[in-house]
Amino acid sequence: MATVSPTPLLKDELDIVIPTIRNLDFLEMWRPFFQPYHLIIVQDGDPSKTIKVPEGFDYELYNRNDINRVLGPKASCISFKDSACRCFGYMVSKKKYIYTIDDDCFVAKDPSGKDINALEQHIKNLLCPSTPFFFNTLYEPYRDGADFVRGYPFSLREGVPTAVSHGLWLNIPDYDAPTQLVKPLERNTRYVDAIMTIPKGTLFPMCGMNLAFNRELIGPAMYFGLMGDGQPIGRYDDMWAGWCTKVICDHLGLGVKTGLPYIWHSKASNPFVNLQKEYKGIYWQEELIPFFQSVTLPKDCTTVQKCYIEISKQVKVKLGKVDDYFNKLADAMVTWIEAWDELNPTPSGIKPAELPNGATK
Amino acid sequence: MATVSPTPLLKDELDIVIPTIRNLDFLEMWRPFFQPYHLIIVQDGDPSKTIKVPEGFDYELYNRNDINRVLGPKASCISFKDSACRCFGYMVSKKKYIYTIDDDCFVAKDPSGKDINALEQHIKNLLCPSTPFFFNTLYEPYRDGADFVRGYPFSLREGVPTAVSHGLWLNIPDYDAPTQLVKPLERNTRYVDAIMTIPKGTLFPMCGMNLAFNRELIGPAMYFGLMGDGQPIGRYDDMWAGWCTKVICDHLGLGVKTGLPYIWHSKASNPFVNLQKEYKGIYWQEELIPFFQSVTLPKDCTTVQKCYIEISKQVKVKLGKVDDYFNKLADAMVTWIEAWDELNPTPSGIKPAELPNGATK
Repeated sequence: MATVSPTPLLKDELDIVIPTIRNLDFLEMWRPFFQPYHLIIVQDGDPSKTIKVPEGFDYELYNRNDINRVLGPKASCISFKDSACRCFGYMVSKKKYIYTIDDDCFVAKDPSGKDINALEQHIKNLLCPSTPFFFNTLYEPYRDGADFVRGYPFSLREGVPTAVSHGLWLNIPDYDAPTQLVKPLERNTRYVDAIMTIPKGTLFPMCGMNLAFNRELIGPAMYFGLMGDGQPIGRYDDMWAGWCTKVICDHLGLGVKTGLPYIWHSKASNPFVNLQKEYKGIYWQEELIPFFQSVTLPKDCTTVQKCYIEISKQVKVKLGKVDDYFNKLADAMVTWIEAWDELNPTPSGIKPAELPNGATK
Repeated sequence: MATVSPTPLLKDELDIVIPTIRNLDFLEMWRPFFQPYHLIIVQDGDPSKTIKVPEGFDYELYNRNDINRVLGPKASCISFKDSACRCFGYMVSKKKYIYTIDDDCFVAKDPSGKDINALEQHIKNLLCPSTPFFFNTLYEPYRDGADFVRGYPFSLREGVPTAVSHGLWLNIPDYDAPTQLVKPLERNTRYVDAIMTIPKGTLFPMCGMNLAFNRELIGPAMYFGLMGDGQPIGRYDDMWAGWCTKVICDHLGLGVKTGLPYIWHSKASNPFVNLQKEYKGIYWQEELIPFFQSVTLPKDCTTVQKCYIEISKQVKVKLGKVDDYFNKLADAMVTWIEAWDELNPTPSGIKPAELPNGATK
């Protein structure tokens, strides 16, 4: 009997973005799941180095010379020697959806021992609505065997479009340097069989290790900031993107999901190196969180680009005094949007057709 | 070898409140877990009926005659022919903690096949802080094998006191009548191994089937409203309590947890009867949720009682026009607080010693 392999979901509508400094042997394990898709590899560090990609994958690869060539002087907004460079891949993609994964992430197993197709679960998350305005105690109401519980307002059961799917990690948890130092042996072994919408008005720590999003809905907010070479901090790239993204999703009435799928995170990064990268961020963050919790966007910010430019202005006014770094970052945010619009010349950005019920801030 | 049974947690500081109209045979299954604790049984319906309680349990039982005797004219605030009557038990308890459970709830098993000690898990939830100001993607950060992830502000890791622990249900999910009618065969088989804090500013549907709370911190907000006999709605008792409780917890900087523990919910109630009880609530709820989402409490509301009286005033002003029922309910809310304070004459209510960081609304 011939086995018919079903067409992979969104095969021609999704790019997988991978930032790396090494050969991509990790793709071997992902072959059954990733091979049908197009990869965008963003090579960090020395551009003269050759990155080997296993046979049979369809990919384009950009090193620093390519980034400089494509963006010209605007390349200054793309970080160097930091995985934050991955956001260049979001910008050059022409697809509706992005999945991004780190090259030290492998296929995890569910409690029954079955390999988890992380990409498929992300796609399911993105294609199914979110429910940011009221909490459902049985978690994702749209999954098989679940629904909205008694007391959930019927007018909110349609949900809103999902912009982001944030996946988790088994084995090495995504801890900061101080926690890594204090708990060097801690491993995440708890498989929590849940997907949930992060409620409106609530910020979360978005990790870029295993992340998918709808590029048309939220792409321009997924800027990973200025990190790494020549910058005073690192390891806050995805956090920064997550705070901006969540504030904009809340404003535009879009959903952010977290939970499944898990990947297997193979090795912890060096906590001493991480501490050096993080220490200013750990300190600054105490001002950043109240800032993002209090950001309000005016009604005429109807596109992601407009929202993002507005946030950049508020960053300059309110965070510039915390450290001059935030003035540079605010400028880079503007440069990022200019570069995005140059490479993605849609008519004045994508606009959510209409704001759903209750979506005004 | 003699086995040493450890002292049950909070043995002398917790009452188990059970509303019922039948013999409490269901307690047999709970014996290993409940027997060390004191039970408060609130007998609903015909007071001349005798409720049998299995041997060996330490309990007090109140029927309608007792409620009338204890509260006098203020007994009007306690519902009749509805499990909402359970809140009378919260009022007469002298303990710091309450666990309430329905008499059709049995011991569930975890995925390893082990009986779940629901009460013990609730107590753990209540004794451990909550984190309502920022979302932790690995769920409860205080559990073994978990922590705060990278990007979680350090200033928020101390958490705030937990006021409520909301447990879930395997087998029959807590669905409203329309969903019961549409999905009569749906069973909840998904054991989600998570506990989480419901973020500040987010409302949730609080179910009274498997619920624990810190009576000193939040007791006076746990009023289950006017339901059942002579009232136009039913099955919104716990929802009402949940909305009031969440708004007050958010104002006072207290936490609400949901997730583990599961109980086994044995049988679905009649969806046709439920529909009759619910239909006005389903309609009214569309106004109630925006109301509770927009309630703000003034700074001088520093006790649960003051907050609750303030909400009752706003109910009268803003919901009285939805239906006259809400004028009656607002009056009953005041009566409830008067009765509570009569039975619990602490010096002007318990006051959270000081508001934690970020707890102001």
